[in-house]
Amino acid sequence: MTRAVRHGRLDEGVPSELPQELVSVLASGPGVRIERIVSRGHVTFADEWYDQAEDEFVLIVTGAARLEFEDFDLELRAGDWVDLPAHVRHRVAWTVADEDTVWLAVFRPASMH
Amino acid sequence: MTRAVRHGRLDEGVPSELPQELVSVLASGPGVRIERIVSRGHVTFADEWYDQAEDEFVLIVTGAARLEFEDFDLELRAGDWVDLPAHVRHRVAWTVADEDTVWLAVFRPASMH
Repeated sequence: MTRAVRHGRLDEGVPSELPQELVSVLASGPGVRIERIVSRGHVTFADEWYDQAEDEFVLIVTGAARLEFEDFDLELRAGDWVDLPAHVRHRVAWTVADEDTVWLAVFRPASMH
Repeated sequence: MTRAVRHGRLDEGVPSELPQELVSVLASGPGVRIERIVSRGHVTFADEWYDQAEDEFVLIVTGAARLEFEDFDLELRAGDWVDLPAHVRHRVAWTVADEDTVWLAVFRPASMH
């Protein structure tokens, strides 16, 4: 069976109003999920933390954000990438309000090393 | 065991001379590999085709390229993404010569559907 080549633009289908962060799955496969996430000033709810079972790689394609960890913060801008091992608690503390922060996120099975 | 958060810039470590396409693994895990590929006018050798065992997702972060398939071509510019199923024969027919084309490539186990 031949599956088709799929393609698109990373900025397509973003509504003018964005009451919540927008998550779109672009591709997936066994254990893997590639998502476009669009934030427009959105942050993780106060006192909430992500504690994920998967490893996550993110590239900031446009915009700016700050990730908060238990021991440090990371200021991110377009062109920065971060690789987050599973169960490293983190939250999105800030995203720029007047432009879209577009994250390309790749979730994969947790690595042991 | 807690593994560390790793981060970097997508444009770092690109030499001023680039005799060949530059491939850097940014992250990996079971079955998955995330690479930065930098092309500067590089193309796939004449009459050579990629025929890969893995599915590959690519995002063009900067630059411009043309992917050639057996039945069609795809013109790509910054912000375009393509999802290439395993064994879909393709080649890089052109990349822009006067700027770097930066691809973020995610290789994952082939999907059956």
